[in-house]
Amino acid sequence: MPAIQSPAGAAPVPMIQLWRGGMLESTHLGHAVICDATGQIVESWGDPQAVIFPRSSCKMLQALPLLESGAADAHSLTDRQVALACASHQGAAIHTDAVTRWLADLGLADDDLRCGAHEPYDTAERNRLIRAEEKPCQCHNNCSGKHAGFLTLNRHLKGGPEYIDPGHPVQQAVKQAFEETTGESSPGYGIDGCSAPNFATSVHGLARAMARFAAATGTGDARDRAMHRLTRAMGQYPEMVAGEGRACTELMRAMDGRVALKTGAEAVFIAIIPERRMGIALKVTDGGTRGAEGAIAALLVKLGVLDPAHPATLKRLDAVQKSWRGMETGILRRAPGFP
Amino acid sequence: MPAIQSPAGAAPVPMIQLWRGGMLESTHLGHAVICDATGQIVESWGDPQAVIFPRSSCKMLQALPLLESGAADAHSLTDRQVALACASHQGAAIHTDAVTRWLADLGLADDDLRCGAHEPYDTAERNRLIRAEEKPCQCHNNCSGKHAGFLTLNRHLKGGPEYIDPGHPVQQAVKQAFEETTGESSPGYGIDGCSAPNFATSVHGLARAMARFAAATGTGDARDRAMHRLTRAMGQYPEMVAGEGRACTELMRAMDGRVALKTGAEAVFIAIIPERRMGIALKVTDGGTRGAEGAIAALLVKLGVLDPAHPATLKRLDAVQKSWRGMETGILRRAPGFP
Repeated sequence: MPAIQSPAGAAPVPMIQLWRGGMLESTHLGHAVICDATGQIVESWGDPQAVIFPRSSCKMLQALPLLESGAADAHSLTDRQVALACASHQGAAIHTDAVTRWLADLGLADDDLRCGAHEPYDTAERNRLIRAEEKPCQCHNNCSGKHAGFLTLNRHLKGGPEYIDPGHPVQQAVKQAFEETTGESSPGYGIDGCSAPNFATSVHGLARAMARFAAATGTGDARDRAMHRLTRAMGQYPEMVAGEGRACTELMRAMDGRVALKTGAEAVFIAIIPERRMGIALKVTDGGTRGAEGAIAALLVKLGVLDPAHPATLKRLDAVQKSWRGMETGILRRAPGFP
Repeated sequence: MPAIQSPAGAAPVPMIQLWRGGMLESTHLGHAVICDATGQIVESWGDPQAVIFPRSSCKMLQALPLLESGAADAHSLTDRQVALACASHQGAAIHTDAVTRWLADLGLADDDLRCGAHEPYDTAERNRLIRAEEKPCQCHNNCSGKHAGFLTLNRHLKGGPEYIDPGHPVQQAVKQAFEETTGESSPGYGIDGCSAPNFATSVHGLARAMARFAAATGTGDARDRAMHRLTRAMGQYPEMVAGEGRACTELMRAMDGRVALKTGAEAVFIAIIPERRMGIALKVTDGGTRGAEGAIAALLVKLGVLDPAHPATLKRLDAVQKSWRGMETGILRRAPGFP
């Protein structure tokens, strides 16, 4: 089986460090690739061939068949819904209301989802549930928008209800789009937290796919139009992709929606940069989210598309850490030499 | 300034890995030392001289002056309170009630604490606060037991109210005990999340201190008796040291309280093993808690003091990961060659 740190590949490099009291406390290592629209590496750190699970960072790839097949148009999906299909949302009312209405439009309900339920990350909705003594439903799952997209595609493909089975037509369509877009045969898949298959690829493959999204003009074939629409929908509705206070939403807003961003569990992050026709993919090898957030911010600053002094940047990079009483305790910043 | 990964020192080694779909997804690297009662290294991984902040893993060191000074006896502290002074508790009612009563016994109140407030990790207490529309108080802070100990020592030392200032007699007493026990001059301190100073030392220094605790007989000088009492109090009241469901509590119970364990933020873990007169200290260099929990379990299994098949072990080592619907998705396990 392929391994992230194969003996043949370069070791991951220090990307983000936590300093406390003038001393280094913790270090996040990772692999990163900036890729251009021809699929060539512009710059890389660590091992571009490291095999990773993109996890939720590839939700726009998983949404390609939804748009390309015509299912999205057949069901008159709005761009707001298209953004939600790419989301790891925090289960705020704006997200759960949208998923619930979407399912109703399909004549479906929460029970038709296969993502499972978990407590929402949104504090207001979490507290509402606790006060009402309600349990979270599957629409609170951060992946419920993606699953609503799967169900819409499934209606179009006339597949069975277990749309998350790796052999189901929905997942087979996802796999084909994933491999064509990354330009690689996937070496295999894992099961994600939402029970859907997640196909592995190299960091280069994931960055190559994102560069293709970045280069889409919206005037070409079905895939080109789908990529163009997904990228713009994410940038136009950043609050639907994650939620208030979260990295994807805040950083996309900081760039006025000109760049599409998506995080994935276990510290994956991607960026789609249309104005540069470039894509970025990175994986912090320890799975620490703060490392991936700091690293993507550093690469966006390096490329000149993110303001290093923007408050959304300074929450993740050169980020002052404070105690519970508000005393400064340390700083999260670039490792020397990165990027 | 010293750095965790100094050029002269050995690199951290892979300790714990997350596997998904038969492929390696994430890796935690770290440094670890097993030390005997003479201060000699029995076995080590990575760089024994790596400088770390012990964070909360050294709370029993921070409690030494409380016992050695006679303050604990003068205030008739129970062993349950002594365990709480070493705690990173989850703010359950058993913890907050005990801290509140302790403060009252001193004629003090929540406002006299300097640890700051945060939402408790205990779900029942968190939900109670939300339903009652109450804010958490400082007694909910996971360090409030340590701070109650500081306040008790402060009463004895007749210091001012800002007992967390690095120059305050309480912290000077902590520093002296810390340096004497680790056997090293601390290269400096950082400010912890609870606003108290946290002194740096090497992984070897921290393990050496823990071996001294392990070798204490309770029949020697004030330090020996304090170390003996602290170790036994932690093992006897594991629920006071952390709380239901948490690693320190569950793993100490799995060893029938014969070993004292303590976690620290940024992935530090220590063990005090009286039956072997040994101490362990480890730091996962990315700061990932699951890595430190898996690594300490692996070392305790290696030493034969923890059952690898105990449910508390299998939550942290060879730990099956599941999706929100209960499907198996992966496993958290030892990296090849560790320990």
